[in-house]
Amino acid sequence: MEISKAKELVEPHLTEARFDHSLRVAETARYLVDLYGGSKEKAELAGILHDYAKYRPLKEMEQQIKAFNLPNDLLDFHSELWHAPIGAILVEEECGLKDEDIKGAIKYHTTGRANMTKLEKIIFLADYIEPGRSFPGIEEVRESAKTNLEHACWLAVRNTIQYLIRKNAKIYPDTFHAYNDLSSHINGGNE
Amino acid sequence: MEISKAKELVEPHLTEARFDHSLRVAETARYLVDLYGGSKEKAELAGILHDYAKYRPLKEMEQQIKAFNLPNDLLDFHSELWHAPIGAILVEEECGLKDEDIKGAIKYHTTGRANMTKLEKIIFLADYIEPGRSFPGIEEVRESAKTNLEHACWLAVRNTIQYLIRKNAKIYPDTFHAYNDLSSHINGGNE
Repeated sequence: MEISKAKELVEPHLTEARFDHSLRVAETARYLVDLYGGSKEKAELAGILHDYAKYRPLKEMEQQIKAFNLPNDLLDFHSELWHAPIGAILVEEECGLKDEDIKGAIKYHTTGRANMTKLEKIIFLADYIEPGRSFPGIEEVRESAKTNLEHACWLAVRNTIQYLIRKNAKIYPDTFHAYNDLSSHINGGNE
Repeated sequence: MEISKAKELVEPHLTEARFDHSLRVAETARYLVDLYGGSKEKAELAGILHDYAKYRPLKEMEQQIKAFNLPNDLLDFHSELWHAPIGAILVEEECGLKDEDIKGAIKYHTTGRANMTKLEKIIFLADYIEPGRSFPGIEEVRESAKTNLEHACWLAVRNTIQYLIRKNAKIYPDTFHAYNDLSSHINGGNE
């Protein structure tokens, strides 16, 4: 899919601010491919498309979670998580995008998971550190992103878990599997 | 099993300080039964026996995890977790204790899990708040334990996760499941 075509397909589904965010994620993802390798085209497409389903009505998404046989436990967690796995399906159904790498990066961009692919890590991280983002600890993640993709993702997941715990919010299992998996790579042991 | 017999069986396996800790856990567990109901005898026995396997050699415990068909993923996590599920088996094998409630309370006293029984919560919490313990946040848990068993357990699990994250340590899945499960009871929703 052409980049320009992807932008054209996404724009009507997002607010202007969210569309701009998506462009920044795409740009940040290209920068991370510069550092860590991979396909710049895929990274850019995944960045542009990652929030494709962000503004679908909750009722519609509830039905899609069941209709698409997505994990039912999603319904027990915050609806903010739903647009990622649903988006990964809708970009194929509605836009004809079949690339499994890109769909995986869309699917896991919010929660992460254990054993993320490189593109999944890049989109997860780009979504966290794109220049429009501003929250406690982000500069440490941005610094780490310059030299160590796994460490930066681990910091981002760790901060996310801490943020959710401070809010008394539940944590989706894929997120703590991502934390444990990345911890093994970072700390190299069973500590 | 008589309380005096349980003490006699445990004492040779523990340091003096750890044996004293076990007696305090038993006493705290009886206090929690006063507040929340249940069998005082089971609570006291579980408290006395909960650290039965604490000082078994690591090599021996590694073999037991395999021999007893305990979850293999335990081996990927800190060995501090091993004595609880192993202890739950050894109290039966070596001491003849068959009570499933008590064995469950021993098994999950370190990690917690989703859907803990009342006795499991009581031992988990008693182990956390017994009067010999001293760490940041414990007074809030002790206060909560006076009025709300689930909330106090949730605070203890939350503190444990935060502590492990600050140490860059991995977190055993049962602990996260306990956190999410208790969060549902505390916050009553999908937040």
